[in-house]
Amino acid sequence: MEKVNITEKLSLIHDHWNPRIAGELNGQHVRLVKFQGEFIWHKHDHEDEMFFVLDGEFKMELRDQTILVKKNEFLIVPRGIEHRPVAEYEVSVMLFEPASTLNTGNIVNERTRENPDKI
Amino acid sequence: MEKVNITEKLSLIHDHWNPRIAGELNGQHVRLVKFQGEFIWHKHDHEDEMFFVLDGEFKMELRDQTILVKKNEFLIVPRGIEHRPVAEYEVSVMLFEPASTLNTGNIVNERTRENPDKI
Repeated sequence: MEKVNITEKLSLIHDHWNPRIAGELNGQHVRLVKFQGEFIWHKHDHEDEMFFVLDGEFKMELRDQTILVKKNEFLIVPRGIEHRPVAEYEVSVMLFEPASTLNTGNIVNERTRENPDKI
Repeated sequence: MEKVNITEKLSLIHDHWNPRIAGELNGQHVRLVKFQGEFIWHKHDHEDEMFFVLDGEFKMELRDQTILVKKNEFLIVPRGIEHRPVAEYEVSVMLFEPASTLNTGNIVNERTRENPDKI
């Protein structure tokens, strides 16, 4: 059993939209990711997804509203809801979601990361 | 869908060892709790438990070692492992764990919180 230092792990991430697995428990992943720019519209039919902002801020675009999520805030996007994260500047996010969750949900394209690396 | 501000939620907590539910997803809870002093030895037979330190630090005592967990660090205690959190000074912690998780695990006593409040 080893503790995980988030600051250290984030310092190892030099790309965007590429989640890494920082922990696993109860069939869920704790993932760390950096965002910048616009992602794609997608949804997860079977997984709720939590976005916890560790540093910076981003906008979660939904079809009927946009929610600005800042450092020390989290947002849970329920399964089935289309969403698109957009970050003007780089943001560091902790994701909490089932291990089965594909980053691009129902869309598979060049931004899909099927088997995230551990960090 | 509403974002949750951790700093605001923590400011509402004025007691110790009494986890509140700040979010729920995929059958899991995001709980917020403040610790100070010594908890009891216990284990969870069916649940892994994640302790993410938001402010301060605490020691997780295990039967074979003690792990100091500081701000921006997390520790996952696997199911079945006896543990006891101890904090010299007040510490603020985010817990990720199945909704079924009882704070005192296999022990039921006056420190048990069977149905945590939402916050």
